[in-house]
Amino acid sequence: MLRIAYFGPQGTFTEQAAREMAPQDEFVAADSVSAALTTVRDGVADAACVPVENSVEGAVAATLDSLAAGDPLVAVAESLLPIRFSVLTREPDTEIRTVASHPHALAQVREWLATNLPEARAVAASSTAAAAVAVHDGEYDAAVAAPIAARHYPLHVVATDVADVADARTRFLLVRQPGSLPDPTGADRTSIVAVTTNRTGALAGLLDELASRGVNLTRLDARPRQDTFGEYRFFIDVEGHIAEPRVGEAMMALQRRCDLRFLGSHGRADGVRPTVGAGADNDDFAAAATWLAQVRAGKLA
Amino acid sequence: MLRIAYFGPQGTFTEQAAREMAPQDEFVAADSVSAALTTVRDGVADAACVPVENSVEGAVAATLDSLAAGDPLVAVAESLLPIRFSVLTREPDTEIRTVASHPHALAQVREWLATNLPEARAVAASSTAAAAVAVHDGEYDAAVAAPIAARHYPLHVVATDVADVADARTRFLLVRQPGSLPDPTGADRTSIVAVTTNRTGALAGLLDELASRGVNLTRLDARPRQDTFGEYRFFIDVEGHIAEPRVGEAMMALQRRCDLRFLGSHGRADGVRPTVGAGADNDDFAAAATWLAQVRAGKLA
Amino acid sequence: MLRIAYFGPQGTFTEQAAREMAPQDEFVAADSVSAALTTVRDGVADAACVPVENSVEGAVAATLDSLAAGDPLVAVAESLLPIRFSVLTREPDTEIRTVASHPHALAQVREWLATNLPEARAVAASSTAAAAVAVHDGEYDAAVAAPIAARHYPLHVVATDVADVADARTRFLLVRQPGSLPDPTGADRTSIVAVTTNRTGALAGLLDELASRGVNLTRLDARPRQDTFGEYRFFIDVEGHIAEPRVGEAMMALQRRCDLRFLGSHGRADGVRPTVGAGADNDDFAAAATWLAQVRAGKLA
Amino acid sequence: MLRIAYFGPQGTFTEQAAREMAPQDEFVAADSVSAALTTVRDGVADAACVPVENSVEGAVAATLDSLAAGDPLVAVAESLLPIRFSVLTREPDTEIRTVASHPHALAQVREWLATNLPEARAVAASSTAAAAVAVHDGEYDAAVAAPIAARHYPLHVVATDVADVADARTRFLLVRQPGSLPDPTGADRTSIVAVTTNRTGALAGLLDELASRGVNLTRLDARPRQDTFGEYRFFIDVEGHIAEPRVGEAMMALQRRCDLRFLGSHGRADGVRPTVGAGADNDDFAAAATWLAQVRAGKLA
Repeated sequence: MLRIAYFGPQGTFTEQAAREMAPQDEFVAADSVSAALTTVRDGVADAACVPVENSVEGAVAATLDSLAAGDPLVAVAESLLPIRFSVLTREPDTEIRTVASHPHALAQVREWLATNLPEARAVAASSTAAAAVAVHDGEYDAAVAAPIAARHYPLHVVATDVADVADARTRFLLVRQPGSLPDPTGADRTSIVAVTTNRTGALAGLLDELASRGVNLTRLDARPRQDTFGEYRFFIDVEGHIAEPRVGEAMMALQRRCDLRFLGSHGRADGVRPTVGAGADNDDFAAAATWLAQVRAGKLA
Repeated sequence: MLRIAYFGPQGTFTEQAAREMAPQDEFVAADSVSAALTTVRDGVADAACVPVENSVEGAVAATLDSLAAGDPLVAVAESLLPIRFSVLTREPDTEIRTVASHPHALAQVREWLATNLPEARAVAASSTAAAAVAVHDGEYDAAVAAPIAARHYPLHVVATDVADVADARTRFLLVRQPGSLPDPTGADRTSIVAVTTNRTGALAGLLDELASRGVNLTRLDARPRQDTFGEYRFFIDVEGHIAEPRVGEAMMALQRRCDLRFLGSHGRADGVRPTVGAGADNDDFAAAATWLAQVRAGKLA
Repeated sequence: MLRIAYFGPQGTFTEQAAREMAPQDEFVAADSVSAALTTVRDGVADAACVPVENSVEGAVAATLDSLAAGDPLVAVAESLLPIRFSVLTREPDTEIRTVASHPHALAQVREWLATNLPEARAVAASSTAAAAVAVHDGEYDAAVAAPIAARHYPLHVVATDVADVADARTRFLLVRQPGSLPDPTGADRTSIVAVTTNRTGALAGLLDELASRGVNLTRLDARPRQDTFGEYRFFIDVEGHIAEPRVGEAMMALQRRCDLRFLGSHGRADGVRPTVGAGADNDDFAAAATWLAQVRAGKLA
Repeated sequence: MLRIAYFGPQGTFTEQAAREMAPQDEFVAADSVSAALTTVRDGVADAACVPVENSVEGAVAATLDSLAAGDPLVAVAESLLPIRFSVLTREPDTEIRTVASHPHALAQVREWLATNLPEARAVAASSTAAAAVAVHDGEYDAAVAAPIAARHYPLHVVATDVADVADARTRFLLVRQPGSLPDPTGADRTSIVAVTTNRTGALAGLLDELASRGVNLTRLDARPRQDTFGEYRFFIDVEGHIAEPRVGEAMMALQRRCDLRFLGSHGRADGVRPTVGAGADNDDFAAAATWLAQVRAGKLA
């Protein structure tokens, strides 16, 4: 049984994602993304589950920054969770005058509350799970929380699938120390961090290396480095697995051009397979390698 | 006197930025970034001050998404605020057992609290200003808030310049309806949103158009469009002013290649002037235009 | 009436091309391509007709080198002549034992001679016209010459359209001093010489400037400069007229990046119209210019 | 002893180049470049010596076209011959009234003849060697020929190093059937033919593949294909040997993008070593391959 750290407390979406990616394992909550990753770097946990991007809020900066610095870690799986809240009370038929949650969660259900609980006052909590605890303790009437919160605290579920934006989703990563990579599935994602100087065309040059090999971006975040003014870190996700020839060659090209850190190759939660242009699929790369070997051996011109 | 909306409540860093960019004006708080921008779109306010990026948290997704959709708005100024908090109490020499703030602010002063107020319990509030109000109301002992909060509420300043990351900064924009652009200052920033299909190399192609004209990126955020699956919006900031030939030509190239929205040209808060490569400064562009006119007139070959 | 110099002697394909491009004018033969161009540079002739490329032999180096150096000249028209020879004798029914021509011409009719005049001995002459003269003088039995030779010398035409390669063609230019350009026809060619250092990627960079504006190459010759070791001259022909926005902008980009000489814009002899990609036709460029003007005027975002 | 065909007749510069590249071998003259290559394709000769480019005339179209079509051949050596002529007579102190040579050679010594033999009449011959034979036969007074002509025919050398352009040079190739490649020397040249459709940017795309790997062009000729209208053949010479990682990877990229024929890798006659940009030397490629292997093995991130 593996020990999985997650950005807690327990009862949050992150725990839910962790249990989805590693159902038989043991889970420990950590105070922050950074703390969760430290437990893995220190060997205290075998893996960590952390959020990496949200379709409404965008990239989770704390996760990206923590993965980019410190000892290397790699993502070996991902989970894409719809962000739909449950509204929890201590008793059925409670009259709801106060609703607690993390301010971000409150922002995501503002319209629902205005329609369904127009009289209720929204109260900030430090996390959605903390709100559930506070409701359980009788401090507030209702909590807007992750569905999994109801598993930890004996609360009554008043409503489910509550969300103003219907298809908001958060992507989570399961991160380990470097080790054998997951096998390619045909619908994979490879993540890297590239550090390059703030020179005109530096990023364009990197993206050209990907495009010329038919490697499609699925995500790009450019963040200034906090320690070195004027340098950027580019967090890049591409379609495909580093075990594939076309992705491998593209990664070598980036490794030659910039300071590169590999953040993992693993199956995509959405199962989307890459669309590869003419001359850029793995068979084309294999054929080119065969051609080169024959030319070098003098068997072809 | 202009009427400036800002993402409130009053007493936040956003108000502070608004007052810095428009000192003589009248200010009104709005409930959300989106609401602040709506007041400008509706003509209720003349301009809005909204946060656009934070050096720790990254891009402010709500701002980017609100600028990209709806009636066009343009940024005419920016402000770069160091994010250093003040700790406020109702009375001097209060014994501090509870410290309230927005969870993000609490996260940014965690170490300071551990060192300076190890016994205090952190309590979530819906904003740093709401925490100040709660302290004023006697609900909690101390608030971690923007310095400007002390201007609105008669609180005692226990500590200033509190921040675990010393140089955390947030950049704010002053946004208006389209109208005459600010004059170029020589140290300008131009912002755009480019929408392109998720085709291999689409982004690389856009960046090549910038790089080939010596136009340097200062920021790039790629966000999936929520309404059209598989399409991305690229939020791009570049060095220079759209009134400059090299920037203007680059923008025309992007306009031909993708769905482009102009988000403004204005002076940079940090005063950094562009470094332009050989053949790409405005004199070079002007010389090329003169050359072309002469060739077309048959006066040169 | 204009005075047209051509690379003579009279009775060659070059004279034929000159008469085709400038039917009412006066013609003077010159000893070499360089000499023909000098008469134009010196004002002795108004224009010169010179060969620029042959589908079998390739570029005519003497023409390219003469256009690239010295006072600027521009091409204002072109002619594409099929290279099919006539076989000429002094009398009908001559028994042909010797056949004279320029060695290049003899090489192009080798198979025809082997089939039709297997017993005849091939003899070198300094030009196809000189061969016609020698036949007229009784020195040899037959000449392989341009059809126009029969116009100057009273010779009998034994055969016409003689050529081993059926569709060999030579393209000729009519070259003048810089002056008003021919109007665009919709099927034009623009010619330039670009001089750049022998740096990795220098040529790729120039071609990218053309490709990104949808400007298609029709010809490219890279020739080492004779005066500066390690530098190249690139002779580039592209589709379109420099008066067109997309071609004009591309030319400005090259002018900024390298030492550029304009060699003319004129209608193509083959009438082929450019195929322009999405976003790169003249309407797209005009729309982008309108957009930019509106944005700069504050009327659009 | 190998059998070397060359574009004859004997006594030409091509024979001279052949003897330089293959001093101990047996030589046979061929009527044309194409015929010389056919003897190699048919196994009648082991190798052929053919001219490939001249600094004054440019590419030798017949050679390029013959290498691009038919069974594959590869160049295994090159020779760079200064084109300086000898003037040969049958007897010392001959009064020279007629000077014979190939018209190209006559064009290259025009000024010398005007200065040194102003009274002599120039007469065309089918080759420089044929002129020497004609002088030996008493037909003309003097021949302008390759120095080696004096080795075959007992003629008197009146002048040597005759050339209007002092440093005119022709490069010759020694061409064989595919077989083991020459070892890299550190100063190598690799030659290819790339066939691509006449699409905007097709050539730019190929050159970008070279430039992004630091592979420098030394020569580029674009020739229309005679058999397929609208398609081009690009004859490209680059610095480096296909056995080198950076050149090999570049060739694989071209092989994926177009119809590619390898024409050989061999030492450069001028001994010029490549200048390679940052991140693109062979050590960089080797380091990238090591990095990739470690990442794939899970030993690194």
